[in-house]
Amino acid sequence: MTQRRFILDGVPGVLWQPDGLPLGGRPLVLLGHGGGQHKLGPGSVDRARRCVRRLGFAAVALDAPGHGERPRSAQDERFATEIGELIAAGRPVSAWVARHTAALAERAVPEWVAVLDALDALDERAEGLGPVGFWGLSLGSVVGIPLAAAEPRVAAAVFGLTGHASQTEAAGRVGVPVEFLLQWDDALVPREGALALFGALGSREKTLHANPGGHLEVPELELESSERFLARHLGRAE
Amino acid sequence: MTQRRFILDGVPGVLWQPDGLPLGGRPLVLLGHGGGQHKLGPGSVDRARRCVRRLGFAAVALDAPGHGERPRSAQDERFATEIGELIAAGRPVSAWVARHTAALAERAVPEWVAVLDALDALDERAEGLGPVGFWGLSLGSVVGIPLAAAEPRVAAAVFGLTGHASQTEAAGRVGVPVEFLLQWDDALVPREGALALFGALGSREKTLHANPGGHLEVPELELESSERFLARHLGRAE
Repeated sequence: MTQRRFILDGVPGVLWQPDGLPLGGRPLVLLGHGGGQHKLGPGSVDRARRCVRRLGFAAVALDAPGHGERPRSAQDERFATEIGELIAAGRPVSAWVARHTAALAERAVPEWVAVLDALDALDERAEGLGPVGFWGLSLGSVVGIPLAAAEPRVAAAVFGLTGHASQTEAAGRVGVPVEFLLQWDDALVPREGALALFGALGSREKTLHANPGGHLEVPELELESSERFLARHLGRAE
Repeated sequence: MTQRRFILDGVPGVLWQPDGLPLGGRPLVLLGHGGGQHKLGPGSVDRARRCVRRLGFAAVALDAPGHGERPRSAQDERFATEIGELIAAGRPVSAWVARHTAALAERAVPEWVAVLDALDALDERAEGLGPVGFWGLSLGSVVGIPLAAAEPRVAAAVFGLTGHASQTEAAGRVGVPVEFLLQWDDALVPREGALALFGALGSREKTLHANPGGHLEVPELELESSERFLARHLGRAE
């Protein structure tokens, strides 16, 4: 597969696509990384491989604000330090994470929209973008839910590992099919909050998959299920 | 596929297997029907076809006590009449259903054990039973959970559409992989009860799949997922 790095309006990203094949008309998956991760972190690269090698799709990832190659503000630095201290002290972090990441999502959503516009214009055959999916858990979903609510080009989404009352309103405006992952023993995301967020999603077609284990222990089988879900909703690549 | 009816100690059942192929060593799925249904109801026959035609497994179904061809006691008659009245009146039914079906499960569990013994002895090649799975929702799970807790031959189970505190103890003794289905808008099973029952399952490997819709609206995709789950855990037929 071909991997191309780019910078758009100061936001570093990476685009993957099958070798020698056009982007136009091809299903495209937006990969949102988790907190503390970045566009070329192992989770992102693994999903890009699944999208491109197994499904024949294209995939794109961006560094979220304050992540990867992007500058960290004083607030980002404070967040990164303090979250470790709170977790180490066994204190609840979800309300505090929600506040910080909601501010981050407000910046990230228009960045994703700009990337979609640029990729749409980039297409060499002027066919325009194919069907677009979103695949991002945890911080990826904090960004992806308001993105899917605002951006009609997103046709299906894999969300999960998140759930705070501040996300309810945007979730209600999501109308596309969603596969939502929950880790039963997630110490970072209260179970009730994740269940309520799933309930709040406005989608007629949505499915919740819950498994034992902590925030970082999503089973391999769920990655395969997410892959099938995206293949089902974005269609087959030519 | 071959369909054979039988009666064992007064319990009517049906056995499905691939035409002309032996039972011995072949994965076998026990199909537990829902309340008011029976061994040859549409749900049971559909699952038997999936097991036999698609997976090459054998499958067996029994009429639960008070169902199908079995005599109904005065209590069964009263239950069948009153549940309709309660639902029509919009009254909560789960505690009352739990009480009635728990008594039914106490009778049904030894009947399933007897069927396993008989099929084990029946095998013409003296190979014995292959790996055994259980697939039953609602009343099927009310029976299947204490069965899986008590019967070491059950190696994997699809449960769901149930959840009452009276099932917690048996659920804790289930140790095999479980796929558990929940309908988000189930008017017969309170969501909290179903979530708590999933949480109580003793299995290290368990997965919850929740979808919008009522008790009888399990999506087709979940039948396919259950099929994959059983194929994964019971192995391929020869």
